[in-house]
Amino acid sequence: MKNWEQCWLPDEENREECAVRCEGFDPSGSHRVLSTATEELKRYGRFPKDAEVLIVLDDKLPPESYAYDSGTLKLTVADERGAVYGAFHILREQKIHGGTSPSFGPCIPDNPFRMLNHWDNMDGSIERGYAGLSFFFKDGRILNGDRIRDYARLVASVGINAVVINNVNVKGDATWLISDRYYRDLSELSNTLSLYGIRLFLSLNYAACMDIGGLDNADPLDPGVISWWKERMKEVFENIPNLGGFLVKADSEGRPGPFTYQRTQADGANMLAEAVREYGGTIIWRCFVYNCMQDWRDRKTDRARAGYDNFIGTDGDYADNVILQIKNGPMDFQIREPVSPLFGGLKKTNMMLEVQIAQEYTGQQIDVCYLIPLFKEVLGYHTEAPDAEGDTVAEIIAAKAKGHRVTPGMSGIAAVSNMGDDPNWTGSDLAQANLYGFGRLAFDTSLSAEQIAREFLAQIWPGKAEEVLLPILLTSRATYEKYTVPLGIGWMVRPATHYGPSVDGYEYDRWGTYHRADHLGVGVDRTDAGTGYAAQHGPAWKKIYEDTDACPEELLLFFHRVLYTDRLRSGKTLIQHIYDTHFEGVSEVEANMESIRSLEGILPEKIYGRIMERMERQLYNAKEWRDQVNSYFFRKSGIPDEQGRMIY
Amino acid sequence: MKNWEQCWLPDEENREECAVRCEGFDPSGSHRVLSTATEELKRYGRFPKDAEVLIVLDDKLPPESYAYDSGTLKLTVADERGAVYGAFHILREQKIHGGTSPSFGPCIPDNPFRMLNHWDNMDGSIERGYAGLSFFFKDGRILNGDRIRDYARLVASVGINAVVINNVNVKGDATWLISDRYYRDLSELSNTLSLYGIRLFLSLNYAACMDIGGLDNADPLDPGVISWWKERMKEVFENIPNLGGFLVKADSEGRPGPFTYQRTQADGANMLAEAVREYGGTIIWRCFVYNCMQDWRDRKTDRARAGYDNFIGTDGDYADNVILQIKNGPMDFQIREPVSPLFGGLKKTNMMLEVQIAQEYTGQQIDVCYLIPLFKEVLGYHTEAPDAEGDTVAEIIAAKAKGHRVTPGMSGIAAVSNMGDDPNWTGSDLAQANLYGFGRLAFDTSLSAEQIAREFLAQIWPGKAEEVLLPILLTSRATYEKYTVPLGIGWMVRPATHYGPSVDGYEYDRWGTYHRADHLGVGVDRTDAGTGYAAQHGPAWKKIYEDTDACPEELLLFFHRVLYTDRLRSGKTLIQHIYDTHFEGVSEVEANMESIRSLEGILPEKIYGRIMERMERQLYNAKEWRDQVNSYFFRKSGIPDEQGRMIY
Repeated sequence: MKNWEQCWLPDEENREECAVRCEGFDPSGSHRVLSTATEELKRYGRFPKDAEVLIVLDDKLPPESYAYDSGTLKLTVADERGAVYGAFHILREQKIHGGTSPSFGPCIPDNPFRMLNHWDNMDGSIERGYAGLSFFFKDGRILNGDRIRDYARLVASVGINAVVINNVNVKGDATWLISDRYYRDLSELSNTLSLYGIRLFLSLNYAACMDIGGLDNADPLDPGVISWWKERMKEVFENIPNLGGFLVKADSEGRPGPFTYQRTQADGANMLAEAVREYGGTIIWRCFVYNCMQDWRDRKTDRARAGYDNFIGTDGDYADNVILQIKNGPMDFQIREPVSPLFGGLKKTNMMLEVQIAQEYTGQQIDVCYLIPLFKEVLGYHTEAPDAEGDTVAEIIAAKAKGHRVTPGMSGIAAVSNMGDDPNWTGSDLAQANLYGFGRLAFDTSLSAEQIAREFLAQIWPGKAEEVLLPILLTSRATYEKYTVPLGIGWMVRPATHYGPSVDGYEYDRWGTYHRADHLGVGVDRTDAGTGYAAQHGPAWKKIYEDTDACPEELLLFFHRVLYTDRLRSGKTLIQHIYDTHFEGVSEVEANMESIRSLEGILPEKIYGRIMERMERQLYNAKEWRDQVNSYFFRKSGIPDEQGRMIY
Repeated sequence: MKNWEQCWLPDEENREECAVRCEGFDPSGSHRVLSTATEELKRYGRFPKDAEVLIVLDDKLPPESYAYDSGTLKLTVADERGAVYGAFHILREQKIHGGTSPSFGPCIPDNPFRMLNHWDNMDGSIERGYAGLSFFFKDGRILNGDRIRDYARLVASVGINAVVINNVNVKGDATWLISDRYYRDLSELSNTLSLYGIRLFLSLNYAACMDIGGLDNADPLDPGVISWWKERMKEVFENIPNLGGFLVKADSEGRPGPFTYQRTQADGANMLAEAVREYGGTIIWRCFVYNCMQDWRDRKTDRARAGYDNFIGTDGDYADNVILQIKNGPMDFQIREPVSPLFGGLKKTNMMLEVQIAQEYTGQQIDVCYLIPLFKEVLGYHTEAPDAEGDTVAEIIAAKAKGHRVTPGMSGIAAVSNMGDDPNWTGSDLAQANLYGFGRLAFDTSLSAEQIAREFLAQIWPGKAEEVLLPILLTSRATYEKYTVPLGIGWMVRPATHYGPSVDGYEYDRWGTYHRADHLGVGVDRTDAGTGYAAQHGPAWKKIYEDTDACPEELLLFFHRVLYTDRLRSGKTLIQHIYDTHFEGVSEVEANMESIRSLEGILPEKIYGRIMERMERQLYNAKEWRDQVNSYFFRKSGIPDEQGRMIY
């Protein structure tokens, strides 16, 4: 008996399997991925009695794409992966429409890489994991079996085609993943993933040549280092099938990297890229490089600048099998940030967008926070200017932007996973919407947040539950933002855990994350008069961000120091805006709880109980945020709430 | 080769041992403790060639006391322990005076119990330990051997006669210390301690009858519970020689206790006391009981009140082999607190004072903080009224106070240990002064902080080093207070670690530790108009504490909310006092470093290096405190420093 669930997927098998016939595939091939597609259709598809579904190869279609004709039951596919995605598309439509799938397609993925980054440690813990323990690792060992297979099925069903299974902070046992200690187990795991067309990636310890190789340095230009990696990569790729490559966090938060040897990030990435080139391997290199030993007294250094400052000078220097992975914002997955200026800035570099569906700063899968609206904003952001064309983040990572030179197939989008070994995979049932939505959005960036939420709900909790939960999901990010951190200033979270409020928690610390509140006002001046960060966005956006009247108001405190008595566009003072939004945020959570109560007896009892239990915790958290933030600013400013509500 | 040092003790053995003769002891006894005394004199004493030292029993002397006549080399002792303390006294005087000890005594210990509480865990870690790992435990096992013997020697040399070896938070393996899993090892350890006249105590898990006994409750009036403990204690005392009894932390910070069963603390303590009575055992019951799930919004509940509120009603209810162990202040070992009102309040209860030489909140053995001045203030505190007699804490715990009924021999003083397996035992070399000083003060509460510091330095670093270090030690507590938390308000430390500043770190948390700062002022009103805590001190002190003009100024913010613009007795405003003391504190640390630099080449190089390394860290810490506290209050108040110094 499996102790985990199948989420949005159909889990009742057919009594009578349908027939599936395949045409156009090389009869001498093994077609393991194609078999997965036919099996899914046979076991879970709902077709007329005695019907035969036809899967036809059309290699003129773009990679991974597919189309379906419901009259002839014909699924035309570009390749085996296209067959898997097409099959799951049919199952999805059948579930949504209660039986029959309409015709669709051709469906062509927007992003070549659609990736999950798991931050799983080999002891079984998950860094920033809120859904139980790892299903990949336990006590230093690699797990395999039904759970991994169901994992692959679940994520392939929404189009994921690559996964990194271990934490980007690679230490201890994990450094040894590229050694014969783990080849056999990794090979088995990789085979399981490959059934669903998913390539295995590993996070790499940049200093592995020292830690396990016995070298005395990791200088990327050192011949000994270069040859160690070459030999090691040969061995690794010979022993692990279906290996896509490596994700590297270097020179970041204490991790070693090329800066130690006065080399550029490109030197480091290219050295590894050269070692994996022969095997078709890809090096994904993270841009999360900043000074995490900052002095809080220093108002010139700005962490927001760090990614751009560290990488812009290397544009064009990277090998064609290197991809830079860039977080959506310049800080770190806050509920509101500007879009990283690197997307617009790098013109000759392969890029991947990194988002986080693990809700590290956005409620930790206790608070409801449907993140697709945030991701849509990022994807739709015009990097040159609001009215420019062919310059959105979506276009850049899909290699369709103007003026960007990208290696074909070497770009995409990755999400830090929100999964663990909890029965429902994501801890919160509603957090499944972020996993589902990320995959769907990565495949088709034109989908709206509402379309995705509707699709998700219609499959899993249709009817009345869908009606009730849809508006809750769609407003949840705004609600969360209201009761937490105002106007883009970020942080104000409890250090270390990152859950719950601590307004000054990072204010006098070394992480470069300050709000600079005093008795008169709050916010960071990032204009040229301040840290100069705004200029990284180019002239059009600089002009907008630097002008308090033009700056998107939700980012006002990210770019400007504002007085509590200054008026916002609503006519409210800043302080009154803070008070009002915090009271509103809590009210909205209370209203959501009320709505969900109407689903008692409608949702399965277990699901209802799990959701309500988290709603209670969200409400507690929202009240803590409201009262701590309001009290903090009231105690600091001395300005009372116009409505005389309770502030402590 | 031992990898640890002997601190203040003589460690060069004599080439020629002196003769020691004993008189008056029962010749049929084994006299193991007496042998320790004679061995110490033989191996380390410096006497004229061919001299014979005489140890004479005089059982009319009070227990543990001794006197020495230097003319006849006669040490008169009350008992074997007296011989040990007398021998170490001779060695101390010989070391201080460069050879010969003067006559002294009779020396009679003021406190029957002179105890160390080790917070050592069985995995080898030490809760709030700043001097390495445990020398009692490692990986769930009990250690024994030379280090334990040298430990016993070290602490017996300053008069310690009882030690609790395991953490008061008893969990996991430590619950099983009272089971046959550990009897043999504990027995050996206890034998080692007993050589130096030290009784072994263990911390007890109040719920052991459930956790290892399989009972379904721990109700102290339940016959099953009572009989489980009776049987278990019989077994324990039969198997562990020299066992003095148990220390219990119940109903505190998540630990189980009698409150769970609607019983009083006395019900719990007495049940255990009854079980150990037959074996001469003592139950030491901690009064650290408070609500650690407080709502920061709640200004009526006051953690400072909790000890008194929880225990005062049970005065007179405790068995005569129970001692209540009471922390010096009502909060938790802050750099400045009032004295706990329980000392004056409990009239018919055996009491022990608990102090902490582990510098949890006082610099963690990085910052120099000689705590004897603080302990002297506590001991000298008049519990009834400033001008009363026979009412000091020292008199109360020595069973010499008026109007207090105490069981003879059932009182004293305990310190949370600052020791670990570092070579110098206390991490910081200067922190040895707290270990040394605690023992000396517990034995003789009339000694001054300066006398003790002089004694310590004269033995370990005499001459120029003594001259330089003495004023540093004596002013260190005041210096630490200056750069950390102003005027008794407490806390403002980093949560969890308790090292370094975080002004709001505990302000919106559940621990009952608030400063309530806003843009106008700071402090907690503990008068009758506020939480009413002051009244727990009785009418005379209530009047003093409630009057801002009479209240000891160093406790002003503990008892009152004060405006930043209010004037202190110095004529300075509160805010200017905060700024000035914080700048002064850092200057004093800088001056101390300068002084210590003059000891380069005078102190042994290793010691000098260790001291300077910690001084550097103290200076860093002091600057963080100065800048964070000053910036916090400047940003909140908007009031600039009159002297225009740098505030961020």
